[in-house]
Amino acid sequence: MSRGKLFLYPVFRMQYLYVFMFYAITVTQFTKMLQNLSKILAKAAVEAENRKVDFSVYLNSRLAPDQFNLIRQIQIACDTAKMCAVRLTGKEAPVHEDTEKTLGELQERIQKVVTFLAGFKEDDYKDSATIKVSQPRWEGKYLTGTEFAIQHAIPNMYFHIATAYSILRHNGITIGKKDYLGEMPYKT
Amino acid sequence: MSRGKLFLYPVFRMQYLYVFMFYAITVTQFTKMLQNLSKILAKAAVEAENRKVDFSVYLNSRLAPDQFNLIRQIQIACDTAKMCAVRLTGKEAPVHEDTEKTLGELQERIQKVVTFLAGFKEDDYKDSATIKVSQPRWEGKYLTGTEFAIQHAIPNMYFHIATAYSILRHNGITIGKKDYLGEMPYKT
Repeated sequence: MSRGKLFLYPVFRMQYLYVFMFYAITVTQFTKMLQNLSKILAKAAVEAENRKVDFSVYLNSRLAPDQFNLIRQIQIACDTAKMCAVRLTGKEAPVHEDTEKTLGELQERIQKVVTFLAGFKEDDYKDSATIKVSQPRWEGKYLTGTEFAIQHAIPNMYFHIATAYSILRHNGITIGKKDYLGEMPYKT
Repeated sequence: MSRGKLFLYPVFRMQYLYVFMFYAITVTQFTKMLQNLSKILAKAAVEAENRKVDFSVYLNSRLAPDQFNLIRQIQIACDTAKMCAVRLTGKEAPVHEDTEKTLGELQERIQKVVTFLAGFKEDDYKDSATIKVSQPRWEGKYLTGTEFAIQHAIPNMYFHIATAYSILRHNGITIGKKDYLGEMPYKT
């Protein structure tokens, strides 16, 4: 939101301004990152075909024997974006089984999350700063929405996108930082 | 900032609430990530010593021949944090030459940025949403502070920390996601 808009903002809604940043960073920007990931995968698929390498070789690659492969990195990036929205707003999460084996299925999974995120609005985030966020493995402990978004969801999301990128990069796919970041809204 | 605090916040400062999120995400949280990186490097150094591998082998490793090595990933993570603070607040950046060759020098570089970030206050960020951010290679084009923080600085910062982590992980250092994320302020 620009400062011009801020100036005209009704005072009674001012307290929500802080949390609207979560919408911008975890809905709008996560959507962009998922779309960047989708384009990176499409680019990698073309290169794989030119080299006559079955794309499943890339999908099953990993950077260390005890690290998740590319398929799982993509699935976790999808779940991180989906569950961040669900946990910060208290909404229900659609179930996405981790059954994808092909690029087509993974692209579909990404698209499902992009569509899911498109259903959220800034106002859904009005209680997100203080909502209690927990996960089964936290054994009853919780983080506030602010702590969860900043210290957990955001670093996790970029971790899995960057790792997916690195797996492809390590296997010789010619992608660069620009593919990871996506288009910038430069102005003159 | 908690909603309790928000409620008592003077109305004339309300317009700044939105941008204070940038302080939380790019000063407080980037500081945490730099400290996590520092601990990961210290842990890796102990493992390298146990295996009788010169740590410079890790520092000069990379995931692809045309990708930056670990030294450069650490330097860029440091610069991303430093320049984000400088660009969002209009302050001057201290010069840090990219001359580090040893772990000790790199730990010192990280510490310098942590100390530099500690000098910033929330109020320094009051114009950060709309400040014009540019870089020499953007050839006169600019991004607003909001666009720069969300679409450029944050994804870049996590990219370089995750890549540094991946280089070590790929070389067999036994680190995990918890080392990357750091401590969580869980509550019961």
